[in-house]
Amino acid sequence: MKVDQQFTQHHPPPRDDLCRTIEVVHPKLSTTTMLTDDDTFDSNGDDEQLYTPPLNFSMVDNGIFRSGFPDTANFSFLKTLGLRSIVYLCPEPYPEHNVEFLKANRIRLFQFGIEGTKEPFVNIPENLIREALKVVLDVRNHPVLIHCKRGKHRTGCLVGCLRKIQRWCLTSIFDEYQRFAAAKARLSDQRFMELFDTSSFKDIPPCPCSCSKR
Amino acid sequence: MKVDQQFTQHHPPPRDDLCRTIEVVHPKLSTTTMLTDDDTFDSNGDDEQLYTPPLNFSMVDNGIFRSGFPDTANFSFLKTLGLRSIVYLCPEPYPEHNVEFLKANRIRLFQFGIEGTKEPFVNIPENLIREALKVVLDVRNHPVLIHCKRGKHRTGCLVGCLRKIQRWCLTSIFDEYQRFAAAKARLSDQRFMELFDTSSFKDIPPCPCSCSKR
Repeated sequence: MKVDQQFTQHHPPPRDDLCRTIEVVHPKLSTTTMLTDDDTFDSNGDDEQLYTPPLNFSMVDNGIFRSGFPDTANFSFLKTLGLRSIVYLCPEPYPEHNVEFLKANRIRLFQFGIEGTKEPFVNIPENLIREALKVVLDVRNHPVLIHCKRGKHRTGCLVGCLRKIQRWCLTSIFDEYQRFAAAKARLSDQRFMELFDTSSFKDIPPCPCSCSKR
Repeated sequence: MKVDQQFTQHHPPPRDDLCRTIEVVHPKLSTTTMLTDDDTFDSNGDDEQLYTPPLNFSMVDNGIFRSGFPDTANFSFLKTLGLRSIVYLCPEPYPEHNVEFLKANRIRLFQFGIEGTKEPFVNIPENLIREALKVVLDVRNHPVLIHCKRGKHRTGCLVGCLRKIQRWCLTSIFDEYQRFAAAKARLSDQRFMELFDTSSFKDIPPCPCSCSKR
């Protein structure tokens, strides 16, 4: 694909194996070239085109979105968000089509390999959630999309911990978690959020999110 | 209450009985007075205070929120959103405590009296939904909170029609509707959204929402 020739992919050494990133560098990118790249993924000039957000898509806060795994049908919608980065919470390699979409739209991928488990064997790695939260809270990465496979458990835990930092009460955090997890809601996830210690985030400058006190 | 003496409440003649509004006018409001008003509703100086968003609260788009009926426990959270207006979709009068909260925070109320009905007697007044949508789409009213009683049906239909204007496909519109309505999801609501004709909104300048094409 033409895109492959224009972009350079970097795999910086992972920080303590917590996070893998794909950085997309544009050596000589003109406005014209950008439009051509866009067309690669949006060749349909039809103004009546409908958009298909990914499963379980929602806005979390200003510049922060969440969803299940996006596939090619969701790309034209995702483009409208003007994403700067994606926080991906599964250990599986990112599919080739998705990597190409990231390159063409200069989106940086932050991958935190959290295993998908089932109760009673749930073990959420707190250190990975903490590192992912730092990425999500950094406005330089906004707009950012958080996703795992179905947007229920791993994404739900991360957003729940973000809400704790925003000082939401647990009732409201669980209300939101359960809205996305529905019949698959897990007590173990909710216990993880309840026990999550936010004191290490006290030093972060005032949260830029609209739902935090300002 | 002191607040009552400081604010003037206007009831402009309703436009074709579609919408009632409460406008709050501050004749001589200094910054000091505003802070005092704030304290009326937030006397707790505790920095560790937790926030309680209303039931079914969520961000719909930039400057647009949705929820169930807010009560006094939710006021400190709602204040953090810096709301400019509320779109209220029930015919019942707004409770006195909520009216006081609006006055103290200079929030304008747009009331569209849509009756709460149960299947098979659901009859959603399309003209009211259209008028409410115009208010929601007007950035001069942002940030705006849309709410009914439980944030499921009336609010769900209004947001679903907004998504149609944003050109979401029906699958995604229903996915979002069902997330909030859960076991109470209604086919009649979904049929209403499917049949809703958005052509009259074509003249509206490009939708300012983040999820629309830009």
